[in-house]
Amino acid sequence: MYYVGLLGLGTVGRGTFEILSDPAGRNPLLSEMIVKKIGVRSIEKHRALQLNQQVLTQDLDSIVSDPEISIVVELLGGLEPARSLILKAIKAGKHVVTANKAVIARYREEIYAAAQEKGVYVLIEGAVGGGIPIIKPLKQSLGSNRIQSIIGIVNGTTNYILTQMSENGADFADVLTKAQQLGYAEANPSSDVDGLDAADKISILASLGFGGHIKREDVYSEGIRNITATDINYARRLGYVIKLLAIARGNAGEDSDRLELRVHPTLVPQSHPLASINGVNNAILVEGDPLGQVMFYGPGAGSGPTASAVVSDIMNIVAILKSHGTGATLDPLLSRTHQHYCQITPIEEIESSFYTRLITLDRPGAIGQIGTCFGENNVSLQSLVQIGLEANQAELVVVSHNVKEQFFRQALESIKQLEAIKSISSVIRVLD
Amino acid sequence: MYYVGLLGLGTVGRGTFEILSDPAGRNPLLSEMIVKKIGVRSIEKHRALQLNQQVLTQDLDSIVSDPEISIVVELLGGLEPARSLILKAIKAGKHVVTANKAVIARYREEIYAAAQEKGVYVLIEGAVGGGIPIIKPLKQSLGSNRIQSIIGIVNGTTNYILTQMSENGADFADVLTKAQQLGYAEANPSSDVDGLDAADKISILASLGFGGHIKREDVYSEGIRNITATDINYARRLGYVIKLLAIARGNAGEDSDRLELRVHPTLVPQSHPLASINGVNNAILVEGDPLGQVMFYGPGAGSGPTASAVVSDIMNIVAILKSHGTGATLDPLLSRTHQHYCQITPIEEIESSFYTRLITLDRPGAIGQIGTCFGENNVSLQSLVQIGLEANQAELVVVSHNVKEQFFRQALESIKQLEAIKSISSVIRVLD
Repeated sequence: MYYVGLLGLGTVGRGTFEILSDPAGRNPLLSEMIVKKIGVRSIEKHRALQLNQQVLTQDLDSIVSDPEISIVVELLGGLEPARSLILKAIKAGKHVVTANKAVIARYREEIYAAAQEKGVYVLIEGAVGGGIPIIKPLKQSLGSNRIQSIIGIVNGTTNYILTQMSENGADFADVLTKAQQLGYAEANPSSDVDGLDAADKISILASLGFGGHIKREDVYSEGIRNITATDINYARRLGYVIKLLAIARGNAGEDSDRLELRVHPTLVPQSHPLASINGVNNAILVEGDPLGQVMFYGPGAGSGPTASAVVSDIMNIVAILKSHGTGATLDPLLSRTHQHYCQITPIEEIESSFYTRLITLDRPGAIGQIGTCFGENNVSLQSLVQIGLEANQAELVVVSHNVKEQFFRQALESIKQLEAIKSISSVIRVLD
Repeated sequence: MYYVGLLGLGTVGRGTFEILSDPAGRNPLLSEMIVKKIGVRSIEKHRALQLNQQVLTQDLDSIVSDPEISIVVELLGGLEPARSLILKAIKAGKHVVTANKAVIARYREEIYAAAQEKGVYVLIEGAVGGGIPIIKPLKQSLGSNRIQSIIGIVNGTTNYILTQMSENGADFADVLTKAQQLGYAEANPSSDVDGLDAADKISILASLGFGGHIKREDVYSEGIRNITATDINYARRLGYVIKLLAIARGNAGEDSDRLELRVHPTLVPQSHPLASINGVNNAILVEGDPLGQVMFYGPGAGSGPTASAVVSDIMNIVAILKSHGTGATLDPLLSRTHQHYCQITPIEEIESSFYTRLITLDRPGAIGQIGTCFGENNVSLQSLVQIGLEANQAELVVVSHNVKEQFFRQALESIKQLEAIKSISSVIRVLD
């Protein structure tokens, strides 16, 4: 029997406990695990769970130091005390399973160094993509490739909001309120809608795919607060949907340690595999040589799906503990860590195509002046469409060819100076 | 260093060799492997590969018995000598990697029993879904769930043909000829177009997902030869696309060893995730509790993608060999085998909705008679649409509600006897 200690009994903790306490019909390995202790903030709280109250404790330290427990499952969320408890568990020689993307994205190097030193595993399948197997496939199945890119819809809340906006023509604020009522968005939605959660996740995926540590602060992120129903509508007419994408892209062949790494709303061609990922679902598209493109799709959050991933990690550790002999060392695929940091290309230097929407005063020569500003900054255009508005104003929707971001920004700066320009309403990158 | 022996240097063999001989930018573990021998039919054959001719041999037995080789990679295809060489390699204590779905689907029990006895791994990621990681995720990531169904588009050739028929309104025979010219279909296309390859693959997936051996002959399979552009067109009007699906479905909760297992052309609702999988791509949708649905999508065949899967298996074995200690046993997830056979529900007893197209003589009362035949056999109908044809004939497109196949067949038998019926042109199951 293998003893497991859970830290936290929130949504995912409950789902994890439910799987572990009901193994029939699942992999037979599950019947060799016992949840010995569950750390909670309050023992008194009423829980609609069939459990022996004896396993509950408010003393989380007693779990990470329990000599009988070999696997500690951290499901507290947040940075502290999660990070400290993970490190204590490692120092006590315990294997760790966590779904805590915020801690892993920020303290990956520290945690993995400690784990390597103690010869224990830290498995994190639940940290990205909910129930979608993506961490283990990146470690174990895709490493035969040169990874070229990892592009994902990795935040269910924002994908739900964008899908609703797209389907109902609703505005961001209204849909956010509805999402909060349905429990799809937090009372403080910043982590989701500002792209921070997605940035945590892409930094974890990129680290695995490209084989280097990532400084979390190097990940450019921009959220969806400024996306309007108008832009979604114009994007559709141009053949695109708007998605919050997390993008990691290597410069294959050139400088393999140099990565693009960014989270931002993106115009995605309607025929692209990620374009049809709707609602709270997640999907991650990995491109490699010689593989080509593979996509992993499924429920990106929630109690059951994330618990499925967490329990699969526990099972993996138990399978190794059962089978490895004396003097075993860490499996180099499953425990892979890195010696160096990836270099992240600053956003200004990344090439992309841009969609922008401008409000102009309907004057003769305005389009010519705008075109000149773009041209002088080496921005060539795919399309420029003027849509008449009321009272002397027009709306101009411009899509550029691929261009370095700094040149596009410079062009916009000079366009802003034009008398004929009332405002630049939106600037959204386009997936090529 | 770990020595690898390749059996076969065809499409996948070449791709495998290319990855192994060019490790830069891939997982560092690859630089610890050496291809010591490659077994080929003819050493003289010209190959556009940079390789030391010394590694080539026509003596395949010398590879599986080479004491220095620890991993034998079988990429010959076909049943023999592949099966015998796999068994010899196992008996010589070698780990085996194979992409041979035909051998695994038929000799799984024999091969896995031998491997268990010798304590070696037989890994088969390349056997299903080409480069898509699906075997390892089923073994290692999804076992925390009660698997409810595995539904896949697992044959690229037929998916290419159906996609072409759908996009161009072309007929089966013409598209097959084109697919053969492009190398997407074999000169003898039976294995693909009759659903046999897909049946091999779903028997392998079902065995992993549902935890029992499958008798290959228990898998019902029906190919796409009878699918017409007319049916594809009517299906579209009804909101469906036609796909060759491989379906494994458990009776969760009731009799967990009883499975539906079948390959046949299927009307798939246009909004279903599998509906938009086009061309030679594959996709596998797995549904489990508490996971929900996850989908794995990508290139289902080809040199590079399949080699990516094969090499990932080699890497997994090397990672284990590097890390396990003395007295190690097989990892119970990665080497999982079964004690019993799954019971497969006969096709007549499976419930499904059916699409059928009938040619009738345009007589008063014909529809009434047909409706009566369905009703008398407990078949209730979702829709019945009559389309006028020339010269007194009409075409009738009927979609039933869910009904046991035998009742639907009985209804068709009595409908055939009606004087007003000229022919039953097609019967296609509908995915619910």
